[in-house]
Amino acid sequence: MTVHDTSRLADRRSSGPVIPSQGRQRPLGLGETTLTSGFWERRQRVNTLATLGHCEEWMERLGWLANFDRVAEGTTAPDRPGWCFSDSEVYKLMEALAWEYGRTGDQEADATLHRLTARVARAQDPDGYLNTCYGHGDQEGRYTDLENGHELYCTGHLLQAAVARARTVGLDDPLVEVARRAADHVCDTFGNHGRQQICGHPEIEVGLAELSRALGEPRYLEQSRIFLERRGRGTLRGDRVPSGSPYFQDDVPIREADAWRGHAVRALYLVAGAVDVAVETADDELLAALERQWEHTVSRRTYLTGGMGSRHQDEGFGEDWELPPDRAYCESCAGIASVMVSWRLYLATGEVRYADLIERTLYNVVAVSPGTDGRAFFYANPLHQRVPASEQEGVGLSPRAKSGVRAPWFDVSCCPTNLARTFASWQTFSAGVGEGGVTLLQYSSSTVRASLGDGRIFGFEVRTDYPDDGLIRIRITDAPSGKVGLRLRVPDWAEGAELQEGGTRRRVDPGFAVVERRFVRDEEILLHLPMKARLTWPDPRIDAVRGCVAVERGPLVHCVESIDLPEGVGLDDVLLDPRVAPYERAGQVRARGVLRPGDPPVSWSLPYGATEGAVPSRSVELTLSPYHEWARRGPTAMRVWIPVLT
Amino acid sequence: MTVHDTSRLADRRSSGPVIPSQGRQRPLGLGETTLTSGFWERRQRVNTLATLGHCEEWMERLGWLANFDRVAEGTTAPDRPGWCFSDSEVYKLMEALAWEYGRTGDQEADATLHRLTARVARAQDPDGYLNTCYGHGDQEGRYTDLENGHELYCTGHLLQAAVARARTVGLDDPLVEVARRAADHVCDTFGNHGRQQICGHPEIEVGLAELSRALGEPRYLEQSRIFLERRGRGTLRGDRVPSGSPYFQDDVPIREADAWRGHAVRALYLVAGAVDVAVETADDELLAALERQWEHTVSRRTYLTGGMGSRHQDEGFGEDWELPPDRAYCESCAGIASVMVSWRLYLATGEVRYADLIERTLYNVVAVSPGTDGRAFFYANPLHQRVPASEQEGVGLSPRAKSGVRAPWFDVSCCPTNLARTFASWQTFSAGVGEGGVTLLQYSSSTVRASLGDGRIFGFEVRTDYPDDGLIRIRITDAPSGKVGLRLRVPDWAEGAELQEGGTRRRVDPGFAVVERRFVRDEEILLHLPMKARLTWPDPRIDAVRGCVAVERGPLVHCVESIDLPEGVGLDDVLLDPRVAPYERAGQVRARGVLRPGDPPVSWSLPYGATEGAVPSRSVELTLSPYHEWARRGPTAMRVWIPVLT
Repeated sequence: MTVHDTSRLADRRSSGPVIPSQGRQRPLGLGETTLTSGFWERRQRVNTLATLGHCEEWMERLGWLANFDRVAEGTTAPDRPGWCFSDSEVYKLMEALAWEYGRTGDQEADATLHRLTARVARAQDPDGYLNTCYGHGDQEGRYTDLENGHELYCTGHLLQAAVARARTVGLDDPLVEVARRAADHVCDTFGNHGRQQICGHPEIEVGLAELSRALGEPRYLEQSRIFLERRGRGTLRGDRVPSGSPYFQDDVPIREADAWRGHAVRALYLVAGAVDVAVETADDELLAALERQWEHTVSRRTYLTGGMGSRHQDEGFGEDWELPPDRAYCESCAGIASVMVSWRLYLATGEVRYADLIERTLYNVVAVSPGTDGRAFFYANPLHQRVPASEQEGVGLSPRAKSGVRAPWFDVSCCPTNLARTFASWQTFSAGVGEGGVTLLQYSSSTVRASLGDGRIFGFEVRTDYPDDGLIRIRITDAPSGKVGLRLRVPDWAEGAELQEGGTRRRVDPGFAVVERRFVRDEEILLHLPMKARLTWPDPRIDAVRGCVAVERGPLVHCVESIDLPEGVGLDDVLLDPRVAPYERAGQVRARGVLRPGDPPVSWSLPYGATEGAVPSRSVELTLSPYHEWARRGPTAMRVWIPVLT
Repeated sequence: MTVHDTSRLADRRSSGPVIPSQGRQRPLGLGETTLTSGFWERRQRVNTLATLGHCEEWMERLGWLANFDRVAEGTTAPDRPGWCFSDSEVYKLMEALAWEYGRTGDQEADATLHRLTARVARAQDPDGYLNTCYGHGDQEGRYTDLENGHELYCTGHLLQAAVARARTVGLDDPLVEVARRAADHVCDTFGNHGRQQICGHPEIEVGLAELSRALGEPRYLEQSRIFLERRGRGTLRGDRVPSGSPYFQDDVPIREADAWRGHAVRALYLVAGAVDVAVETADDELLAALERQWEHTVSRRTYLTGGMGSRHQDEGFGEDWELPPDRAYCESCAGIASVMVSWRLYLATGEVRYADLIERTLYNVVAVSPGTDGRAFFYANPLHQRVPASEQEGVGLSPRAKSGVRAPWFDVSCCPTNLARTFASWQTFSAGVGEGGVTLLQYSSSTVRASLGDGRIFGFEVRTDYPDDGLIRIRITDAPSGKVGLRLRVPDWAEGAELQEGGTRRRVDPGFAVVERRFVRDEEILLHLPMKARLTWPDPRIDAVRGCVAVERGPLVHCVESIDLPEGVGLDDVLLDPRVAPYERAGQVRARGVLRPGDPPVSWSLPYGATEGAVPSRSVELTLSPYHEWARRGPTAMRVWIPVLT
């Protein structure tokens, strides 16, 4: 039996992973909203019941946890299990456990976190250095491989875990103390009078900035700023990585860059930290540069799913318009990192486009990765799978980022724990407070009780079957005195949405539907979002999906899976007839398909010839499923972008 | 002054890299034909004058040659320069020098080869083992890393160099002696009673098979067969390479495979050796399997250029239909290896399709790589470059396989020496002898004097400006008594070719145009190949070039370069109007283009929307250049596949 006890919890009202000291909006805190049912509540529940334990079990089994014990006991050995960054997985799990306990008071999560904290704390050196791969016994010395060693990356995740703890139980906690000593060590070592170096994998920047906010320690923010400004000047040895300094964003100073490039997770973690620094230091020039980079990257280097990272090679961004659906990497962690970036930009600017991209990414990258049981994960999330994966690839430790089948754990296993911390704190990305009211950004059945900052409380209950259904019902439970704003995000795709309130029903455009008035208890405000399936066309400059169309419904990108095709028909032989609008039948999205009759004629054995392929003939009804459901019925071939009949 | 002396040369009549003991055709020997002018003669001359010396200079400068001296002197050190496979570059240069001397009697090439042979020979261990990276001083032990160590790969190239020497100066030569001892060592070590292992990078198989032919030593052929049969059964540790055992073709036994897969050069070198073994052991089942694999791979995994390898990751083949033009790897060495395979299959079967693919690959991969001065090279040969490379990337040692600018040398520098040996022996791939005559496969101005095997000589002179012009003139210089066959390859693309001989002119279909009769001295046979520029369409299942068309002229794939576009027009904004046939004006191929008017409308900042892009408007004349000329006027953006106006 799970015991829930919130008596030890700190004031969680404003609790969450990102709490800027200024900006257009503050996030709704973990203590201000609870998911009650629906899409995200189910995933949060599976995270609680399965994923957290799954992550701990795997890291215990593989010895990634015992690495800390070995350092403490002075028994490090050359055969240390795990990559040099395995400590970070432990910290991400600890962050997830901290949010879990903070959200629910789950005593088991708290106990696990205590145990892990004790093991980690014992491995910390007297001067605050903490890493199980360097600097002990026969290991390489500290900071001898800044390019690939990931030491500061690991520390950054430690700091984020401590932020979660500090904001849920308070500052008097052993994990917070460990992080404080680690952060002090980083400042002592890499400050203006220390080593003029940076870490090959950004993360320390965002960790230091948030710890600075959580502990009120300006030195950490300053160190984050120093790391940011030092980057982009060839500090790291570009010849130590396959594609040179752009790989780790050391080619151009961050405020001079045009677009995100190189390794996608690195690029996005760096930007997340940069937004934090820009906001806290009121550096409007830097903020404007990051917004421009967001625009460039989103409009030319981002998948329909919100996924980022076009290349397996370097796990990196491609050039503008380089968005192959089959070799899309779209790493699950890059999706999470993209949400981190857009969330920070939303809080700073209040612009709806950031929340639009967050929704797209949450439903079509973040929700795609975990298996229904919370014990298997996609690492990469391509938009086209030609050959179904083998079931075998979903058994045991996966040696690499395969697509097409979810695997329980990976040699490089960044996604499971990253998803765990994201699901554990999901609602903290769902709404903002400020500008005289509450802004609801992501829709889920939930209760909200928000402090407006002027002593007033605004409470309401959200009931919805979104994204299956487009009706969102909001019933006021705590009506504050006087006028208050309720702003509802109308997604960018929701042309024809309607708002029903105060006895009227009116059309609302994409952006924010605003009701600003005095509310009364139990009154209902209804938002109707149009959920008709629709065709979506790519910009003609995206070479890899020219002549194709995708089907979307609400926030969900859809796909065709081979399992839903008629017997004997391959996914390569299917075209979509765009003259017929997609429709719904028996609860599923459908479209009119046309089959190509076998192999088209070619002039020679090479697949190129003097004429275009044969004209397709036979009609077929195509069944489309939400992309996040891909491969849940077993490995399949799959397409998001479907060639059109011309 | 270069001195040419052929007096020491052996009988070069049948000399060449591949001389099967049976098969439908024997190759024309190095001593039976001489290039006199034209496309390939120019490249062979640049190879002589520049590339051979360039390769030696770089390997001396980088210490790859001195590695041999260090082993001989017992002074190997942990900082050995070069990758573990750098010895193979030395051997490929030695092979090139052997063909060079054999072809021309160039004393300088011979002297260089003598010097290199002496340095290499001194590094050989008493038991025949020869490798500068393993087994000496503090180096790792011999054969401790079969997956990645490349020891047998290097040995294979040594054997091919010795074959070149044996077939140009005879068996009594120090290089031949070194190779014999190395081959004996391999047989002793890896025979049926030795280590049951194979090398991660195939090459020893093709080297042993050919050395067996050259020296008449059946043991080497048997060892090659053993290596082949041992492969594909998980002998190598798949977890030692990024994508597991398919990477080095150890997943499926060679006679059971459907298609080539994994690292392209490895796959192709393996098949080259397998054809040799199949032919020499009369293993028709194996030969049939290799032919099926060729068909599958050529019809679904091969670029319009003949290039193979769709992925930068693993330098590998992709799935069927995975042929992205932008991220095409199409490694220069894979092009050479593909020629090696198709040449062997042609000799075994006499089928024209193999020679067709060789022509395509020679003009559109092999000829693309070297710079005009023979001192810079493309490593990868993509069919689309979005952003012009930086000139800077063409200066000095290139750390990796960049496209868009030719670099003088590479960290992994397999192409320059591979090109050198290929150009030095180019004409040995150009014609076959057998079935009562001579078959001309590749057209170049040249003289031919072929032994028909029955004591008769058949001689003729070829004059042509091919591939600029489609007229090939053949003047008989030695008319043998009695009937003889002259077969001329009519390329697969040459619909409407005509043959003019004996006072008649008649249409000939793609395949072989055969003239079988008694010839008289000085009579002329003319082949007219139609050189009209033409549109080529991709199979509609090739997703990455859907909605695009390419322009070809004769054997040359063409491309559009950004340098030829009107001021202010980007390559992303150009469409081709396929209703107008491509044409020639002022000596260049042209096509009607249409420009897209600026950025098309999208519904939001993401590049996806509810409508298709705007209709293109302004017409423009597009200039197309042969793909092999790409980036010779400086770095450019480039496209082979051009989106069509629909």
